[in-house]
Amino acid sequence: MDTEIDEATWLERTLTADIPLGGAMALTVSRLDEAGVELALPLGPSINDKGTAFGGALASAMILAGWSLPRLVLKRAGVEADLVIGRCEIRFIAPVGRDFRAACRWPDAEELRSFRDRLEQRGRASLALEPELCVDGEVAATLSAKYAALTRKEDGDTDA
Amino acid sequence: MDTEIDEATWLERTLTADIPLGGAMALTVSRLDEAGVELALPLGPSINDKGTAFGGALASAMILAGWSLPRLVLKRAGVEADLVIGRCEIRFIAPVGRDFRAACRWPDAEELRSFRDRLEQRGRASLALEPELCVDGEVAATLSAKYAALTRKEDGDTDA
Repeated sequence: MDTEIDEATWLERTLTADIPLGGAMALTVSRLDEAGVELALPLGPSINDKGTAFGGALASAMILAGWSLPRLVLKRAGVEADLVIGRCEIRFIAPVGRDFRAACRWPDAEELRSFRDRLEQRGRASLALEPELCVDGEVAATLSAKYAALTRKEDGDTDA
Repeated sequence: MDTEIDEATWLERTLTADIPLGGAMALTVSRLDEAGVELALPLGPSINDKGTAFGGALASAMILAGWSLPRLVLKRAGVEADLVIGRCEIRFIAPVGRDFRAACRWPDAEELRSFRDRLEQRGRASLALEPELCVDGEVAATLSAKYAALTRKEDGDTDA
């Protein structure tokens, strides 16, 4: 359990200090366990001209919730890799008029094993995730995204 | 030309004050003319753990660039309507390692006329737009999005 608490602290720092927009959104890690990750965000910093949450803020929160899981996989495996989002689709289902949460469930064990194996063997691997945006337990938006991990090269080569 | 300057000022204020995340991203309206709108954003507030721009920031910039055009249509027509983004698809093409711009071209005159006509007749209408994210003129990400306008009701009725 101590490990999970430490991971949540580490993750929250990464999402708010290394990614300042997460800090501007006053994001916190409200849950990190065997089921998945959940981020909590106040409406205030993400509000729009209509008094509801700006679509870009909802997108950002879901992108970060999804990103958190493969990021933790890399950390647990001690692998130095860049992790980027590729093509994604967002559905905005209902306006968000109060504080909200972005959550993502872990993929099943076989998918995670395959992700780690491919990364080790080929230096790159991707994981498809489906983060959701919830208000009082109701889904207000969904994201379908593929996250790609690319092992950092140590020989000085750089990609364009 | 004075009108366009005033509109750009009004738009920038809307995108940064009414939508504080646009302010946190230090967004400015760098161009607004007959071709379309272009927003300029510094890398700093949008940076991620890899020193490139966070995907959510790129998504937010493109969502706002697209949103700006129907918002201006509504303003010019003197129509009070809420304007929201529906389903959208984002393609992240290349990492963004410096200041960037989000731009959207006006749809053709026929599409705009149809948007205004439907809104007047039915109280709701949508516009499909394709904002792009550019760095030094190279496209680094694209957004395909539908924006829906819904006339505000004056009789006290509210949608769920």
